[in-house]
Amino acid sequence: MYFLGVDGGGSKTEAVIIDENLNIYGRGKSGPADVFNSNKETVKNNLISAINSALDSKRIRIEDIRFGGFGLPAVGELREAIEIYSDIIKEILPGRFIIFNDVRGALEGAFPFENGVVLLAGTGIMAMGKVNDEVFRIDGWGEHAGDCGSGYDIGRECLRYIFKMYDGRIEKSYMYELIKEDFEEILRKTKGINSRGYIASYSKIVCESAKNGDKFALKILENAVEEWKLTVSAIRGRIGRNEKIKLAVVGGLKNCKILYDKFLSWVREQDWIVIAEPMYEPSIGCAILAMKNYKGI
Amino acid sequence: MYFLGVDGGGSKTEAVIIDENLNIYGRGKSGPADVFNSNKETVKNNLISAINSALDSKRIRIEDIRFGGFGLPAVGELREAIEIYSDIIKEILPGRFIIFNDVRGALEGAFPFENGVVLLAGTGIMAMGKVNDEVFRIDGWGEHAGDCGSGYDIGRECLRYIFKMYDGRIEKSYMYELIKEDFEEILRKTKGINSRGYIASYSKIVCESAKNGDKFALKILENAVEEWKLTVSAIRGRIGRNEKIKLAVVGGLKNCKILYDKFLSWVREQDWIVIAEPMYEPSIGCAILAMKNYKGI
Repeated sequence: MYFLGVDGGGSKTEAVIIDENLNIYGRGKSGPADVFNSNKETVKNNLISAINSALDSKRIRIEDIRFGGFGLPAVGELREAIEIYSDIIKEILPGRFIIFNDVRGALEGAFPFENGVVLLAGTGIMAMGKVNDEVFRIDGWGEHAGDCGSGYDIGRECLRYIFKMYDGRIEKSYMYELIKEDFEEILRKTKGINSRGYIASYSKIVCESAKNGDKFALKILENAVEEWKLTVSAIRGRIGRNEKIKLAVVGGLKNCKILYDKFLSWVREQDWIVIAEPMYEPSIGCAILAMKNYKGI
Repeated sequence: MYFLGVDGGGSKTEAVIIDENLNIYGRGKSGPADVFNSNKETVKNNLISAINSALDSKRIRIEDIRFGGFGLPAVGELREAIEIYSDIIKEILPGRFIIFNDVRGALEGAFPFENGVVLLAGTGIMAMGKVNDEVFRIDGWGEHAGDCGSGYDIGRECLRYIFKMYDGRIEKSYMYELIKEDFEEILRKTKGINSRGYIASYSKIVCESAKNGDKFALKILENAVEEWKLTVSAIRGRIGRNEKIKLAVVGGLKNCKILYDKFLSWVREQDWIVIAEPMYEPSIGCAILAMKNYKGI
C-alpha cells in the first residue's frame, strides 16, 4: 500500500511516497505551493511536478497511491484555503487525500508516535504541538501580526538599524560595513510582494555581526530569544502542569549559533522541556498523516 | 500665469491651480498615484482626473498652465521612479513639469519662504527639511526598512500583542476587547499587498487603549515616541550646531493625543526646535515648487 506525502511551502514543494512500513519509494521536488503568494496554475504545476518525480523514481503509478497527505500554507488560518487547495488536488488524486497546515506535517514527521512540539523557526516562526491527539499551535501569524522572533523579524530589524545608521540617527557599527548591496537596491527589493524571504536573508548579517560583538546585532538576537521564550512558555498552558514535553527545533535559524545557544541555555533551566531531534522530515510526516487518516476511514 | 501643483500618494491625489501671487483658481481630488502599488493606467487616470477637476472649476485650459509640480511617492528613492512618472505626465503636460518626492511638496507648502522641517507622520513617517536651499531627509524608508514610529509600526505592534493574547503568550488587556473584527479576518487582510493602510488603522485602537491605561498600548506609544525623538534629533546633524529650526508636524498620528503630547513635552526641552504650523497644504507646496522651478529656467 502506497501513501503520498506532499510538503508545500512559500519557496518549495517536496513529495514522498512510502508504504505502511515507512519504506520510501520515491521523492520529488519543485517550486512554491502557496496559493496566497503564487497563482493557482503555478501551484498546481508544482504539485504535479513534485508528485510525478516521486512516482517516476520507482515506476509507481498515481493509481497505486491509496491516500495522500498535503501539508500546505494558511490551512487552518483562512477558511477558504482548504477549498482552494481541494479544487486543485482533486484533479490530481480524486477523493483520496487530506489537507492540513504544512507545520502539522513537520510535527507529525518529528513525532509520529508520541507527544511533542516542533518550533519551526525560519522566515516565519510557529510552535505546534500534540498532546494525546490534541493539536495546538502558537504564533505563525505572518510577518505583520506575528512571527515574533522569526528570520523576517531579525532581518527587518537589521534593515531598520542599517537605515538609521545611513541617516545618522545612530552611529555606524560593524553590521553597516557588511551590507554590500547599495541602499537603493534594498529599497527596491523591500517594496511590493515577495519581499519576506529577501528581508529574512538579512538575519545572516545579524548573526555574523553578533559573532563580531556588534551591539545592535546582539540586541536584535536578544529580542528574538525573548520572543522564542514567550512562544515556548505558552506551550505550558496547553499541557498538564507537571508534564514534560519533547521539543524539536527545526528551520534555518537553528544555524544562527548565538541565537540558538542563548535559547538552549534558557531551555536547560526549564525542567519541563526535553530537546529532541525530529524523527522524520516534514514530507514524510505528511505521508504518515495520510496513512493515519486512511486507516481512520 | 497659472501653475499646477499635484500631490499624489498611496491613497489619494490632490491637484491645485495657483497664480504667481498664490491665488487659488481650482482644486481637484482623485484616487492613488503610486506606480509601485497601483498600475500605471490607474495612476495616469487619477492624475488626469484630479487635474481636470481643478481646471474645470474656473474654466482654465490645460494650455494655460505654465508649469506643473508633481509630488509623487518613491521619487529620490528609486532611480526608475522619475522615468516612469515622466512617461505618464509628458502626455498630460508635455515639457512643462517637474517631479519630486511627495514629502518635498509638503515641506514647500509648510515653509515656502524660510527654512524648516516637516515631520510627516501617518501610515509612514519621514522628516524632510531645508536649510538655505539644501534639502535633507531622514527615514521614510518604508515599513520593512524604516518608517520607525509610523502608524504602520504602531498598528503592527497592536496586532502582534493581540495575537500574543489570543495564543496565551501574554495576558489579555483592554486593547484585546476593542478588537471587534474576528481574528481570521485580520489574517486575511494582512496577507499580500496593500495591507499597509489596514494595519496602520489599528493605531487608533492603540491610542484609544492607551487613553484607558492599557499598559501594552502605552508601551507601543512610548516606543514610537523614542523613534520620533531619534528621527528629529538626527536633524541637528544637518543644521548648524547653534541654529534653531522650525518644525511642523503633519499627518494622522498628530490626532493620537497621548503620543503627540509625549512628543511635544520632549520638544519643549529642545532649545533648538520651534514648533510651527504649516503655511500651506502639500498640493500648494507642489504648485509653489512648480513656480520656483519655472522662474529658475
